[in-house]
Amino acid sequence: MYYIGIDVGGTNLKAGLVDEAGNIVEVERIPLEYKDPEQFAEVVAGLAKAVSAKGGVALEEIAWVGMGMPGSVDGGNVRYLTNIPMENVPLEELFRKHFDRPLYLGNDADCAAVGEYFSGVGKGTRDFAVVTLGTGVGCGLILGGHLQGGAASSEAGHLVIVHGGEQCNCGRKGCWERYASATALIGFTRKAMAEHPESGLHAVAEKNGAVDGRTSFEAAKAGDETALAVCRQYVEYLACGLNSLINILRPEMVALGGGVAAAPEELLLKPVQELVEKESFSSHGGRVTQVLRAQLGNDAGIIGAALLGRVV
Amino acid sequence: MYYIGIDVGGTNLKAGLVDEAGNIVEVERIPLEYKDPEQFAEVVAGLAKAVSAKGGVALEEIAWVGMGMPGSVDGGNVRYLTNIPMENVPLEELFRKHFDRPLYLGNDADCAAVGEYFSGVGKGTRDFAVVTLGTGVGCGLILGGHLQGGAASSEAGHLVIVHGGEQCNCGRKGCWERYASATALIGFTRKAMAEHPESGLHAVAEKNGAVDGRTSFEAAKAGDETALAVCRQYVEYLACGLNSLINILRPEMVALGGGVAAAPEELLLKPVQELVEKESFSSHGGRVTQVLRAQLGNDAGIIGAALLGRVV
Repeated sequence: MYYIGIDVGGTNLKAGLVDEAGNIVEVERIPLEYKDPEQFAEVVAGLAKAVSAKGGVALEEIAWVGMGMPGSVDGGNVRYLTNIPMENVPLEELFRKHFDRPLYLGNDADCAAVGEYFSGVGKGTRDFAVVTLGTGVGCGLILGGHLQGGAASSEAGHLVIVHGGEQCNCGRKGCWERYASATALIGFTRKAMAEHPESGLHAVAEKNGAVDGRTSFEAAKAGDETALAVCRQYVEYLACGLNSLINILRPEMVALGGGVAAAPEELLLKPVQELVEKESFSSHGGRVTQVLRAQLGNDAGIIGAALLGRVV
Repeated sequence: MYYIGIDVGGTNLKAGLVDEAGNIVEVERIPLEYKDPEQFAEVVAGLAKAVSAKGGVALEEIAWVGMGMPGSVDGGNVRYLTNIPMENVPLEELFRKHFDRPLYLGNDADCAAVGEYFSGVGKGTRDFAVVTLGTGVGCGLILGGHLQGGAASSEAGHLVIVHGGEQCNCGRKGCWERYASATALIGFTRKAMAEHPESGLHAVAEKNGAVDGRTSFEAAKAGDETALAVCRQYVEYLACGLNSLINILRPEMVALGGGVAAAPEELLLKPVQELVEKESFSSHGGRVTQVLRAQLGNDAGIIGAALLGRVV
């Protein structure tokens, strides 16, 4: 059998035909043009059929379709999405009118976790988490081989690490994602630049055309002290939430994904791993959780969406 | 079949014979006299046989023995205990020399969760947590019908809620249990008493012979403003960690156990539930996690230990 995974991006729908071993054998991409739920379901069904045909696989060989979406989903239903005005839509029901297969929905972090679990760095683990460091902090949890939260995905980015801290959009104050997302890192970087006109951060930002999640790591790698302090602060906040997540769940492995995870290992992964070894409960004996970089990059979303049916 | 659950307390070993429906049909209690792991394993096996005999059940009808212990366990092995000098002991192996049955080990909070899941307030849920408010903050997690953390139990009491806050024994600063345990509540109460000699807290403490986890709730119930402020502060910290736990796992229900959970509903459970409804991610739509009081009291430990074999 084959599975189809669809990644719903900001401007595109990208579908992958995935085999039983978790490899992408064909892809097909179309622009995202949203009218209404009915039209969207029809477009998705058409895209699924198109990528099957392109891969030379008969529709009878497609077991199911999975879709990764930025937002909140519940079984085959969309609760709400951040980039498409869709709320409380029974998407699977609409989809089946055009292609009678199960449609599994997951959020982006869930799909990244499922992808890495079957085809990436999480292979062979039992309890595994992916934490994505992007606009926010996302989290997908595989516990005992199952995706945690069919009815409601993990929102680990909204664990409070600073009581009474920065106001978060979610309503709480001091959420982890206010301190450990790429957005937060950019904020720390801008603040450091304003306070340190002599810092090498300015040259790096100018060269790259903007301040982004890489600016501080790039300047720190070149030895800039201000940038190094920004990276250390960021790592400390990142590890704070990671250690809480690890103490609650004691997983074998946490993989970091998203843009920031690409930072130089000695400035991000290594110091984070050191703080986990020193501060998580594992330091009192027992298994120490490994912190590694996610492996699959953008493919994780498609592979994970395609394999959602295996972890429900 | 029958199961035997043994609760390892500070001064006693209490064994219960439990039937398939999760009811305790007989109990037997002996003083805890610890010499070494071999002697302890023999005593435990003898106790299991004694409670079976007392209940009129043949040993052939005992499927397994489970044991709840204050500390860290891993399968049939003890990592370390807080009240008995036992470290890295293959207890099941020693036990089987005297009674050839599986021996399942769990920590106290795990057993409370398993007991409440099968026979108490958690019946019928899929994702369920028990949070115990005692000397520390303990946590047992049932996710998808399985106890989370066979190799390493949840240590949710050691999620940081106050970055850089109170020093915890675990090495971190600002752990939830420094703010939400009975110990923390007693600390808040003492501080309020020192600052408010006019408060009714003094009379309540004197009447009961000591400041304990009930002092503030009792005085607050009688209308004392200082005590009310202590209760509100405690509830706010308790809800802070609960909301983080809930956002990470999105369970259907969290049950509060331990001495503090017995506080008047309108001063503890009700305001906590309100903060969960207001601040957890569920407030953005989807399932709201219920916060309730654990039902089984001390029996939860025995029933949970006895049924550990069902959730591994």
